[in-house]
Amino acid sequence: MSIERVVILGGGFGGLAAARGLAGAPVSVTLIDQRNHHLFQPLLYQVATALLATSEIAWPIRSLLRDARNVTTLLGTVVGIDAEARQVKLEDGAAIPYDVLIVATGARHAYFGHDDWERHAPGLKMLEDATTIRRRILMAFERAERETSAEKRAALLTFVIVGGGPTGVELAGTIAELARHTLPGDFRAFDPRDSRVVLVEAGPRVLAAFREDLSAYARKALERLGVEVRTGTAVTRVDAEGVMLAAERIDAATVIWAAGVQASPAADWLGAAKDRAGRVMVEADLTVPDHPEIFVIGDTAMLVSDGKPVPGVAPAAKQQGAHVAATIRARLTGDMAIHRFHYRDQGSLATIGRSAAVVDFGWIRLKGALAWWLWGIAHIFFLIGVRNRLAVALNWLWIHTSGRRGARLITQRDLPDDDG
Amino acid sequence: MSIERVVILGGGFGGLAAARGLAGAPVSVTLIDQRNHHLFQPLLYQVATALLATSEIAWPIRSLLRDARNVTTLLGTVVGIDAEARQVKLEDGAAIPYDVLIVATGARHAYFGHDDWERHAPGLKMLEDATTIRRRILMAFERAERETSAEKRAALLTFVIVGGGPTGVELAGTIAELARHTLPGDFRAFDPRDSRVVLVEAGPRVLAAFREDLSAYARKALERLGVEVRTGTAVTRVDAEGVMLAAERIDAATVIWAAGVQASPAADWLGAAKDRAGRVMVEADLTVPDHPEIFVIGDTAMLVSDGKPVPGVAPAAKQQGAHVAATIRARLTGDMAIHRFHYRDQGSLATIGRSAAVVDFGWIRLKGALAWWLWGIAHIFFLIGVRNRLAVALNWLWIHTSGRRGARLITQRDLPDDDG
Repeated sequence: MSIERVVILGGGFGGLAAARGLAGAPVSVTLIDQRNHHLFQPLLYQVATALLATSEIAWPIRSLLRDARNVTTLLGTVVGIDAEARQVKLEDGAAIPYDVLIVATGARHAYFGHDDWERHAPGLKMLEDATTIRRRILMAFERAERETSAEKRAALLTFVIVGGGPTGVELAGTIAELARHTLPGDFRAFDPRDSRVVLVEAGPRVLAAFREDLSAYARKALERLGVEVRTGTAVTRVDAEGVMLAAERIDAATVIWAAGVQASPAADWLGAAKDRAGRVMVEADLTVPDHPEIFVIGDTAMLVSDGKPVPGVAPAAKQQGAHVAATIRARLTGDMAIHRFHYRDQGSLATIGRSAAVVDFGWIRLKGALAWWLWGIAHIFFLIGVRNRLAVALNWLWIHTSGRRGARLITQRDLPDDDG
Repeated sequence: MSIERVVILGGGFGGLAAARGLAGAPVSVTLIDQRNHHLFQPLLYQVATALLATSEIAWPIRSLLRDARNVTTLLGTVVGIDAEARQVKLEDGAAIPYDVLIVATGARHAYFGHDDWERHAPGLKMLEDATTIRRRILMAFERAERETSAEKRAALLTFVIVGGGPTGVELAGTIAELARHTLPGDFRAFDPRDSRVVLVEAGPRVLAAFREDLSAYARKALERLGVEVRTGTAVTRVDAEGVMLAAERIDAATVIWAAGVQASPAADWLGAAKDRAGRVMVEADLTVPDHPEIFVIGDTAMLVSDGKPVPGVAPAAKQQGAHVAATIRARLTGDMAIHRFHYRDQGSLATIGRSAAVVDFGWIRLKGALAWWLWGIAHIFFLIGVRNRLAVALNWLWIHTSGRRGARLITQRDLPDDDG
C-alpha cells in the first residue's frame, strides 16, 4: 500500500507536532480543525481571569504551517470516520479521503452524567470558554455594584471552582488575586476584598499528581491568598444560584468546572474500544487495533507506557505527534516495523497566583517564588512565536510590577441561557 | 437649585472627559454605560482587520476612573429620560435621579432607511462590530480554501466597503494589505493576492473632509494597494450575495458599511428637536432648550460653532465633555452664566495602509510616509495608559517590519443570521 494522503484531525499540540514532523515529507498532508487557531491551553486560565488577551495564546494554524508547503489546513467540523472507505466525513457533507489518518481531536470537560450542570458551571477548554468565564466573573462584580440586598451581593461575590487539579488551583489563585489586588478601588458600593473564593476537590488533596509536600504547600499558598480550600468534598448539585456540597449550600453567581475531561467521540467514530473517559485504547505504536493506518494521539488516546498510563498533558501529545510523524516517514521508505511509543515525563508545574508555584521535574522539586519564575520562563519558552513571547513577557512584567490587568473586557453579548 | 447629583450617560470620549473634569468636585457623579469599557474608536478598524487585539484599544471605564472617588460607574442600559421627574430610566426598571444630566450616548451606523441591509453589511462602532467584521473577513478566506467553484471563490475573495470617509478608506487599505502582504503563503488552493477590494463612495471623492489634493493622493495610494475606488457611485441594494451599484452587480461575501451615522435616540428620550441624523439641536452652551440642567455632547449633539457645524469626531466630544464639566464647576460656585462652547479644530488625519497617510492640521498639510509616522505617533500619544501605548507600539513595529499580523483569530461562534 502506498501512502499518498495523510489526514490529521485536530490542530492542538498533538496534531500540530504531527504536521510539523511531516513537513517536507513526500506525502500530501491535510490538517482539519473546527477552529482556525492553535491554542496554548496551559495559559487559558489567564485569559479567563483577564490577565492575557486571546491573541496572546492562540495563533492561526495555517500561519504556523505556512512554510510546510505539503501541508494544507482546512477549517471543518468532523462528524464521522468511514474506516472501510478510508474517508473522513465533515459536517457540510464533504468526504476527505486518506491513506493514513491521525486522530488528535482532544477532550472536553466532563460532568459525570450531569450535563445540565454545564450551563451553570462552564468548563475551560476552548478560547470561547475562557471569554465566557471572564465575562461571568467581571459581570458578577458589575452586578454587585448595583445590588442593594446584602445577601444577593454576597452571592455575586462568591466564586466556586470545582476541581483541585492544576487548572482549578490556577483559577482559584488568580481570581483571589483579581479580587484582592486588582479590583480594590474600582468599586464604590462594596470592597472586592470581601469576595469569597472556594476551591472544592473530591479527593483528599489538591494537585494530586504532585508529591504530598508540594500539594500541602500549594494548599497553604492558596489559603494565604484567601482561598477556602475544601478537600474530600464532593459537589452534589449545581444550579443557577450556586452549589450543594453534600448538605451544605453555597450561594454563588459564578461556578467554574475544572473537575474532569471526556475525550472527543473518536472511539465512536472508529467503533474502537474505549476507557471510561472515552479514550481510544491504542496499540503500543499508537495505532487503532486492526487499523495500522489509523493513529490516535493526545487526550483522545489511552496507552500504558512503561507500566504507567500516559497522562493527558501537552508534552505527551507533542511527543506522540512527533512519534507518529516519524513512523509515517519510516513507512514511506518501506520500513513497516512497529515503532513503540515511550513517554518521557518532563515533570509537572503549577502556579498559585502571582508569586508562588510548585515544580516537580523528578530530579528536582521546587516551591515558592523561584518556582514561579521557573514556571514563567518555561511557559514563555514554549509559547510559539517570538512576538507572542515578547508580548506575554511584557504583560506579565507589567502585572507583576503594577498589579493591574490589561484584558478586563466584557465583549460577548448577553446570551439568554447565560444568566447564572 | 443646588447640584448634588450629576449623571453622565455614556463612557465614550465625551462622557469620560466630563467625568474626569468633575473628579474631585463637591458633587456626586454617576457614569452609566451599557458596556464596561471605554473604546478608542479611531483604531477600531485595526481590530476589524486583525492588526490589534480588542484589549489594546479598550479599557474598563471604572478602572480609568478609579482615582475619581466621587465618581461611581454603573453598567446599565438607558431606555428613557423623565425630564420632569429628573430621572434616567434603565432597562432593568431602575430610576436614577439627577440634578444635572450629561447625555453622551454617541451614534450608531445608519442605513438610510434600509435597516435590512445591516445583517449583510455590518457597520463599525462597537468592539463587537469589529470582531464580527474580523470573523467575516477571515472566514471568507477559510471558505475560499475549500471552495471548488471558481465563481463562488471569486465572490468569497471580494470585499466591498461602502463609504469613502476615513473609516472606509482605512478599512479598504488594511484589507488590501491583509490580502496582498499578510496572507500569501497561508493558502494552498488560491492566491490571496487575487482578492478584490472595492471602495464605493456616493460623493465625487474619498475623504471629502480633506483638501482636494490630499483626497486625490489618498485615492492614488489606495489604487497602488490594489483597491478599486468607485466614486460618484451609490449602492442601490445589499443582499446576502453582494451589492448592486445602479445596474452593476458585484458578488461579494463580505460587505462592510462605513457610510453614515445615526445619533442615539436621546432626542426622543428628551422630546427635543433633532436634525436628520437624529442629533439634538443644542444651545450654544450645549444645553437642551428650556432644560439648563441637561447637556448633550459628542455625536448625539448638533451645534453650529463659529459658523460651522461641530463635526462628530473624538476631539470635539472631548472638548465638549471638558467644557460641560467646567460649566458645572462654575455653577457649583454660584456662577450661573451661559458658557458658550467654541470648537477648536485640531486637524484631520487618515491612513491608507502600512505606509501612507494624509494629515491636515490647517497650518500644515502632509502626505506619504512622514504623514504615516506622524499619524502613528499621534494615535499612540492619545491612547490611554502607558502599557497600551507600549503594546500598540510594539505591535505596529512588529507588523511594520515583518508584515505579519498577530490578531487573526476567529473566536465567535457561528450565528444563524451571520452567513452572509
